[in-house]
Amino acid sequence: MIDTMPMTHADLASLDLMFLQELISPEVSAQLPSGVSKTQMRPLVSTDYKRRHLDVLSVLSIVNDLCEVLAWVSQFHAMRATPNAYFSVIILDKASDKIVGVGTVFIERKFLRGLGRVGHIEDIAVDRSQQGKKLGLRIIQAPTHISESGGCYKIILNCNDTNIPFYRKCGYVKKEKEMMNLSIFYSFY
Amino acid sequence: MIDTMPMTHADLASLDLMFLQELISPEVSAQLPSGVSKTQMRPLVSTDYKRRHLDVLSVLSIVNDLCEVLAWVSQFHAMRATPNAYFSVIILDKASDKIVGVGTVFIERKFLRGLGRVGHIEDIAVDRSQQGKKLGLRIIQAPTHISESGGCYKIILNCNDTNIPFYRKCGYVKKEKEMMNLSIFYSFY
Repeated sequence: MIDTMPMTHADLASLDLMFLQELISPEVSAQLPSGVSKTQMRPLVSTDYKRRHLDVLSVLSIVNDLCEVLAWVSQFHAMRATPNAYFSVIILDKASDKIVGVGTVFIERKFLRGLGRVGHIEDIAVDRSQQGKKLGLRIIQAPTHISESGGCYKIILNCNDTNIPFYRKCGYVKKEKEMMNLSIFYSFY
Repeated sequence: MIDTMPMTHADLASLDLMFLQELISPEVSAQLPSGVSKTQMRPLVSTDYKRRHLDVLSVLSIVNDLCEVLAWVSQFHAMRATPNAYFSVIILDKASDKIVGVGTVFIERKFLRGLGRVGHIEDIAVDRSQQGKKLGLRIIQAPTHISESGGCYKIILNCNDTNIPFYRKCGYVKKEKEMMNLSIFYSFY
């Protein structure tokens, strides 16, 4: 099947993309590592479950993989059916055809700020074997660029204290505090 | 027109609701102030621009009212067209037929946590003339309840240090830090 082969730009046309490839900044893509182990940045596609999508996310949080590809695909389609809201960007290691980096922005519509929009950067993760290649920076830059292009007046993310220095390097500054509902917290942790 | 009259439950059926009234906790609604100045909690409706919706939000942030009711209505419909995502709750002062409190949750779909969902509480505001009636607490509780009912594994909000004590009283605890993209920050502030 063509979508399990190392991909070329021509191959992208045959994939079931979450959003248009053109929304990913060519400048950011061009800064990915080249050489023997080539990487490619593209939108998440409906066949990415098998490319270790959830394994990469497990770096970040509890994934609780249901091992149900149909449920994963259903979530993919639900997100895509939400107009101009979810943009999941992945970095693919072309040699192994495995995902090594993921990052998502969802764009929230608001009534304030002139019926404005806010970009929420979520679930940034890079495979531990790929550290030192600045993939983390690229997987932040791409959703940030999508948010800017989408007219967001603000782009935010939440992180723990450990990751603040990293996000500072990515051009983010501390702003407010995240608070979490306690009752649900206790039922899940 | 019936939707400018003080409302009864029967009137709700004639309004163009953002979501089902049944999603609003009856227990929370029942705790709203009664007496001479009655209040009612309901979903935002497509005619709420004229009920001071943006004026109430101006307590919170720059509203930049475009004075274009059609643009406001278009945003309302765009939010409602996003399946199971936006839930804007309002508190109406029935005597004046004006909105005196607003709160929104949008429910984000994720791939991690068993294809989980997160409730993001946004844009909580209460008219300054209505302070001391615990409307702020109610306008947090309603979207929190919607998030719980919607199966969210986590419900979060971002706030500044000044508002942390208030959100603590509402059952929220400090968790992570919000960070904001600096380039867009400078272009808007």
